[in-house]
Amino acid sequence: MTGPRYTGIVRNLPATVPFVGPETHERARGAAFKARLGANESVFGPSPRVQQAIAETAGQVWMYGDPEAHDLRRALADHHGVAPENIIAGEGIDGLLGYLAHLLIGPGDPVVTSSGAYPTFNYHIAGAGGVLHRVPYDGDHESPTALLGRARETGAKLIYLANPDNPMGSWHTAGTVQAMIDQLPQGSLLALDEAYGDTAPQGTLPPLDMEDRRVIRFRTFSKAYGLAGIRAGYALAHADLIQAFNKIRNHFGFGRVAQVAALTALKDQAWLAATVSRIRQAREAIADIARQNGLTPLPSATNFLAIDCGRDGTFAGAVLEGLATRGVFVRMPFAPPQDRCIRISCGTDRDLSALENALPRVLKHVRAQA
Amino acid sequence: MTGPRYTGIVRNLPATVPFVGPETHERARGAAFKARLGANESVFGPSPRVQQAIAETAGQVWMYGDPEAHDLRRALADHHGVAPENIIAGEGIDGLLGYLAHLLIGPGDPVVTSSGAYPTFNYHIAGAGGVLHRVPYDGDHESPTALLGRARETGAKLIYLANPDNPMGSWHTAGTVQAMIDQLPQGSLLALDEAYGDTAPQGTLPPLDMEDRRVIRFRTFSKAYGLAGIRAGYALAHADLIQAFNKIRNHFGFGRVAQVAALTALKDQAWLAATVSRIRQAREAIADIARQNGLTPLPSATNFLAIDCGRDGTFAGAVLEGLATRGVFVRMPFAPPQDRCIRISCGTDRDLSALENALPRVLKHVRAQA
Repeated sequence: MTGPRYTGIVRNLPATVPFVGPETHERARGAAFKARLGANESVFGPSPRVQQAIAETAGQVWMYGDPEAHDLRRALADHHGVAPENIIAGEGIDGLLGYLAHLLIGPGDPVVTSSGAYPTFNYHIAGAGGVLHRVPYDGDHESPTALLGRARETGAKLIYLANPDNPMGSWHTAGTVQAMIDQLPQGSLLALDEAYGDTAPQGTLPPLDMEDRRVIRFRTFSKAYGLAGIRAGYALAHADLIQAFNKIRNHFGFGRVAQVAALTALKDQAWLAATVSRIRQAREAIADIARQNGLTPLPSATNFLAIDCGRDGTFAGAVLEGLATRGVFVRMPFAPPQDRCIRISCGTDRDLSALENALPRVLKHVRAQA
Repeated sequence: MTGPRYTGIVRNLPATVPFVGPETHERARGAAFKARLGANESVFGPSPRVQQAIAETAGQVWMYGDPEAHDLRRALADHHGVAPENIIAGEGIDGLLGYLAHLLIGPGDPVVTSSGAYPTFNYHIAGAGGVLHRVPYDGDHESPTALLGRARETGAKLIYLANPDNPMGSWHTAGTVQAMIDQLPQGSLLALDEAYGDTAPQGTLPPLDMEDRRVIRFRTFSKAYGLAGIRAGYALAHADLIQAFNKIRNHFGFGRVAQVAALTALKDQAWLAATVSRIRQAREAIADIARQNGLTPLPSATNFLAIDCGRDGTFAGAVLEGLATRGVFVRMPFAPPQDRCIRISCGTDRDLSALENALPRVLKHVRAQA
């Protein structure tokens, strides 16, 4: 009895996952983490108004969500000063990146990203059969020059840039990104991931230009808005590209609760501002803890900090493991030389106390062994 | 300035959607429907325990859901007497069908379904570049014989059968379905959609056999469990096929609220039983209303009824339009001769009063014009 006949692409895919979830680690260690600081979630939570809206929607959850997400898209359009036709809302940026790969990428199609940049993008490109070309970071920044150069060489259909960057927390100014957009090779679409745009300094995000067919910009409710567990993100682009998503997306995949939660979150900009302020304070507190332990915090425009542990990936990995053993969940960059760092998400005072408590013990142990 | 370079498959896809949402109709008519009886949702709602669980999860929604959906899969495994490795849980059956198409179907790959069966399956196959071969219903039943015959002729990689059937509400016995499984051609996988299995008579669903590599079975929390708006479904299959989903699925796409809601719903089997009983009563009430108006209700194992309007698709379409104008949202089969029917989901007493009130007026008008 033979099994299913998978496509050639699928047969050749490795059985990898972009990220191992903290719950998997917790099951393996037999205990919950004291501080969950690895997934760049917002420990400051969603707005109380959002929580109330979710609770109030519980009785209506027997109804499918509006497949057009009309109300949310109209509110987002007003918020950004664009038309609803320029917005696709859906199951988080991850889901939308998957749809984008489906739209553009077939077997062998060239795609350019940075070595060590967001792995879920790479995962979706591999799933579509695309060929990934990776360029190195420039210092701890993604390099628009290198990305553009490789895109020209390879005839890339798609280029990925996160601004601000994950996992490094670095960022480019709006001017630098706009200059990159203006130099894009004919036929290359820029997937500009602005998941961390809400926490970035003024002047980081270029103005929206919905007539520009060369770029699609991704935003999320998973980070500063504190709604990672509800799955809600959106993309802004020329209306033709947005319309193309309707050919392949799961029309009823963006549920009613998610739509209500996102809409309510958008309306509570005061909560967003308060959260961003708390994130800034937490970044400073984490930087202080790092410096007190002889480590170097990198500048960050995000809700996390990359902490340079001063040696190589093996050393940083040992620090990460040591923290996990002591109940502090963090992650680290995948590729050298960025993997000399660990990546710590902003936490509550209690989370940061756990970090402050664990880090010197872990470092003492790891330094003694190194 | 050129736009994005879509794949050949995407360029050739029509800009259709599987279903227009009721909200779109409501916006067009400028008023909400009085009775929402078109999407086979469960108007009887989710269990109160589920509503409470959703409300209690609202504060934890800043955390991504467990990408392994460990707790839900273990509970489902216990419920069905299989292993967690036989279960993939995710964003509704629609989402899982999309993943299955991604796994198996490439350009030109043959797939067999029934003419007029679930359009979202067809939509995903088209999105993957597959070639759909459609066989007619046998009476108002999907025909295992015809499906098997066409699968043999075409070398189909995938065959779709819904049991019970949507949109007709008809069903086959477990024995008939098992006989179909046993006769599947080498290399054909049966996608057995059992979304309406919870409302079917005993003896409709064949026993689960997780060693059988020829079939994957889909279940949902969107129908009898009343959770359409949360997006939660699952599939049961051989562990190798389940493992393959991990190569291409959106690992963090199945959110925390959805997982908690589904797990709580599963544990409240008393609510499910009570709902199934209410669905049965509503089916009888709808059948009575149909007969009182000279229409013929078809036997149903689902949470909806197909009502034979006695003429052709144009006539049934006019009845549907008339009901919509009077605030009653229903749908109808897409393909002849099943499109002689309208399809009415089970409703509350209040919903059915609206139907009872509207139907004779609509029929009087439509019959006068016909």
